[in-house]
Amino acid sequence: MTDKIEFFGDSISGNCYKLQLAAAELGVEYVWHEMDILDGATRTAEFIAMNPNGKVPLMLLPDGRCLPESNAILSYLAEGSELAGADRYARANVLQWLFFEQYSHEPFIATSRFIMKYLGSPADRQADLDARRAGGLKALQLMEDQLAANEYLANDAFSIADIALYAYTHVAHEGGFDLGDYVSVREWIGRIESRPNYIAMRAASGGH
Amino acid sequence: MTDKIEFFGDSISGNCYKLQLAAAELGVEYVWHEMDILDGATRTAEFIAMNPNGKVPLMLLPDGRCLPESNAILSYLAEGSELAGADRYARANVLQWLFFEQYSHEPFIATSRFIMKYLGSPADRQADLDARRAGGLKALQLMEDQLAANEYLANDAFSIADIALYAYTHVAHEGGFDLGDYVSVREWIGRIESRPNYIAMRAASGGH
Repeated sequence: MTDKIEFFGDSISGNCYKLQLAAAELGVEYVWHEMDILDGATRTAEFIAMNPNGKVPLMLLPDGRCLPESNAILSYLAEGSELAGADRYARANVLQWLFFEQYSHEPFIATSRFIMKYLGSPADRQADLDARRAGGLKALQLMEDQLAANEYLANDAFSIADIALYAYTHVAHEGGFDLGDYVSVREWIGRIESRPNYIAMRAASGGH
Repeated sequence: MTDKIEFFGDSISGNCYKLQLAAAELGVEYVWHEMDILDGATRTAEFIAMNPNGKVPLMLLPDGRCLPESNAILSYLAEGSELAGADRYARANVLQWLFFEQYSHEPFIATSRFIMKYLGSPADRQADLDARRAGGLKALQLMEDQLAANEYLANDAFSIADIALYAYTHVAHEGGFDLGDYVSVREWIGRIESRPNYIAMRAASGGH
């Protein structure tokens, strides 16, 4: 038993890394339970009882309540802080980038990275990888256009929208997406990495 | 010019219908701009200037600010009301279902419906349709399990989580997902449809 928030996550996952970044920014203490996705750690009966969807990350509160979905956890952690947005429109504007991340970015860039880096690009996934290319390029171009005119994605202020999108964008090269031409995205990555409370993703390789 | 919120949406889209349902529940007046997705209405320069991602729905506020992403718009509309959740955990718990909807439900059930009902199940999309089957069944089973023990998806209270998931679930049969065996899901659909402010989706066909 602990009076701290507990996170169940796999350090190879950008969705899990988001929580570490947000907690560092917000000064939230937590206990980390490392879960090996590739070894079936999220498929045990004990874990399914906490999250029927069988996915990490998962947050466990000291009173026993659980919360899945990385971006819902980010919203929980950031509620009431500047990282969630300063007013009603700003908060919804942060959320639109969180939904963009899950629908229009993660299925292309994060999944390509998983297939290449962790599954080793098996031949029977090549068509799947190819099919994810256009969506990833579109997401990066949309970010590039936004960041060419704004320092941060939402409301011209650093927020959990930046944390959510940074997580897989800064390792996009591991999924075959070269960031060389996305100048504004790379500058934004630099801004995030120079924040005083920034912590690196343990599983990231250099190259962006 | 108007002092009302304006929505740009296509009535064949469940994502757009969500806004009509939420506005009816919350008593929000709005102007509706019908956009024909299949006719390229979201690809015009005028629309791309409002939403670079080229998607409906889009909300336009009287002061000229725009907001895309159906579930971000739902959150904007519901902020401060019971439909968004009563406390910090409840609000995040509503959000987890909104993210579940966009990541684990919509790409399977809504996209299958679009391919079948609006593209006419072309032969070159059959493999794509088949690939979306398992995810849709998993999402429905997860909802069934949750609704077997709870009247509503989040916090045992009607919320925008129910509105978001209802939109495409109640027309799942149009995407080849028969709800016959999902007894609790069908009872939940009945509860939503018997609410006093409920409005039907114009494009829906009977059968659930």
